[in-house]
Amino acid sequence: MARIAVVAGDGIGPEVVGQARKVLDAVLPGIEATEYDLGAARYHRTGEVLPDSVLTELSGHDAILLGAVGDPSVPPGVLERGLLLKLRFAFDQYVNLRPSRLWPGVAGPLATVKPGEVDLVVVREGTEGLYAGAGGSLHRDTPAEVATEESLNTRHGVERVIRDAFARAARRERRKVTLVHKTNVLTHAGSLWARTFEAVAAEHPDVATEYQHVDAAAMFLVTQPQRYDVVVTDNLFGDILTDIAAAVTGGIGLAASGSINPSGAYPSMFEPVHGSAPDIAGKGLADPVAAVLSAALLLDQLGHADAAARVTAAVGAELANRTPGVPLRTEEVGDRLAGYAVA
Amino acid sequence: MARIAVVAGDGIGPEVVGQARKVLDAVLPGIEATEYDLGAARYHRTGEVLPDSVLTELSGHDAILLGAVGDPSVPPGVLERGLLLKLRFAFDQYVNLRPSRLWPGVAGPLATVKPGEVDLVVVREGTEGLYAGAGGSLHRDTPAEVATEESLNTRHGVERVIRDAFARAARRERRKVTLVHKTNVLTHAGSLWARTFEAVAAEHPDVATEYQHVDAAAMFLVTQPQRYDVVVTDNLFGDILTDIAAAVTGGIGLAASGSINPSGAYPSMFEPVHGSAPDIAGKGLADPVAAVLSAALLLDQLGHADAAARVTAAVGAELANRTPGVPLRTEEVGDRLAGYAVA
Ligand SMILES: CC(C)[C@H](C(=O)O)[C@@H](O)C(=O)O
Ligand SMILES: CC(C)[C@H](C(=O)O)[C@@H](O)C(=O)O
Repeated sequence: MARIAVVAGDGIGPEVVGQARKVLDAVLPGIEATEYDLGAARYHRTGEVLPDSVLTELSGHDAILLGAVGDPSVPPGVLERGLLLKLRFAFDQYVNLRPSRLWPGVAGPLATVKPGEVDLVVVREGTEGLYAGAGGSLHRDTPAEVATEESLNTRHGVERVIRDAFARAARRERRKVTLVHKTNVLTHAGSLWARTFEAVAAEHPDVATEYQHVDAAAMFLVTQPQRYDVVVTDNLFGDILTDIAAAVTGGIGLAASGSINPSGAYPSMFEPVHGSAPDIAGKGLADPVAAVLSAALLLDQLGHADAAARVTAAVGAELANRTPGVPLRTEEVGDRLAGYAVA
Repeated sequence: MARIAVVAGDGIGPEVVGQARKVLDAVLPGIEATEYDLGAARYHRTGEVLPDSVLTELSGHDAILLGAVGDPSVPPGVLERGLLLKLRFAFDQYVNLRPSRLWPGVAGPLATVKPGEVDLVVVREGTEGLYAGAGGSLHRDTPAEVATEESLNTRHGVERVIRDAFARAARRERRKVTLVHKTNVLTHAGSLWARTFEAVAAEHPDVATEYQHVDAAAMFLVTQPQRYDVVVTDNLFGDILTDIAAAVTGGIGLAASGSINPSGAYPSMFEPVHGSAPDIAGKGLADPVAAVLSAALLLDQLGHADAAARVTAAVGAELANRTPGVPLRTEEVGDRLAGYAVA
């Protein structure tokens, strides 16, 4: 039976993760879950973000379910880099998976798109690019200061994530992959991505392909999000594009994500894209849908495709039945989702 | 009298530039215009993109009005880097100015925003960052290939563009500047931008400030574009954000831009954000509004604020009076705009 590590985290994290666990227990009884206390509270108490001993313990699990970390009281970047990015890199989670659907019942911001028409997934590279941490500065705080950031890209890293994107596309109905980069300006990395994309595409004659510059893709995600099926892109472009995709499908409040090591050599991590939302924390008002959808991605990754599909369908039922303007209660949503998922 | 260089370029470039000149001549008779033949056609004829002699000639003008360059027959990147980026760097055009308005009469894609509610300008850095051309690759076309792109940022370059953004904000009604970066990941460049922003902000107690990560800004440009007044950001983030801003305000078909050297040491360049649109070229169907708005930015930069305001108001009148679904004729739009501008 699956052994998962649960990092509920800060703010609304514990509330939404509670519902995700409720739904997981309903569809797959017997999951073994161990809680890990990480995030702003632990940082304040102990000064530690992610001790090596905890990293080692986490590595022994099949997957990590994370709620949200972060609090205005913690200096920006400390938890992001010390916890989230550290886990992505330490566990070689090179597939950062972010599906976006415009669910029936959800009022998106676009007048031009009907519910059900958007169903895309961004496969964002998770371990390279400008996130490598390569950069520096000289003459800090003087008029001569210079600061650099270096994007590092390897054939190894680019090829494996593109392969993953094609494999996912081959299992989907539309079977289309869009590569997004900025080859006309970032010529070296762009060329590596484009050549690797072509090489992998040649092995998948059944998958349609297209290329777009990141600025054009950002625009088309707003004007024609329907056109996308699988989008593969680098770490930073993926960061930006997935927030646009979330925005046009009803906001990051509904967006799920997985940081996946497809080999299974390390645990993959699943978390809602939203933050810890300290303003509504503890009030039972947070929407657990993104956490529950993240749990569905977790189930899928661990080979429980049926259970994953039931959870996803439960979310569809929940969203289709919501009455606009009626405030939701976190616990009640969780109960309903668990009910739908086993019905 | 102003001496401008006109680069009509490829595709619909000559058609839309023709209307921009018509409007310029109407509001400011006596402008001296010299045409330069650059773009895909010249590249095919001579193999040259931008000869040094032409660069020198261009530098003798007060401003450059550009239509569009590019054609599918030219390898990607050749004209972008050899002409557009070369001019931005050679003429130290460090302020890349991109206003976005949701004009009354224009149907934007957002259900949540009313015409007139969006009126923002992105001040994009134009001479540094990932556009510096610093990068390389090793072991090309082998499994060991590595490719890098380096973002170069100087206090000099960052400070001058932030100063420009604050100066613009101080002249606007809402007087607000939003800095967009990714300080939680790009820590070195992000810190330089953030510290410089704070230093300049301290000199402008009358201007409100905020900071957003680029992913959040991309999202809020879709969900709440009304919140922005002046946005200042780096070269690549600006490239992406301005296309989102254009998308939410009716598309790049209406978007104007200026690549500005505020010192006047070199000519500034003004061009519609749209491309050469070869599919409709020569048919008299292209909308010249973006080119005409770019001409208004040119007038403003050359100190003709009144004439600029008249051209901008003419565009407002034109857009407010359009009947949705009625195809437009490039020449007729130009005639109407010239008429409105002098009325
Ligand atoms: C918190 C931050 C470091 C992170 C990222 O940039 O990847 C976040 O924006 C995300 O998308 O998961
Ligand atoms: C053509 C390209 C090099 C250019 C850029 O990236 O700056 C374009 O996208 C723009 O925004 O003007």
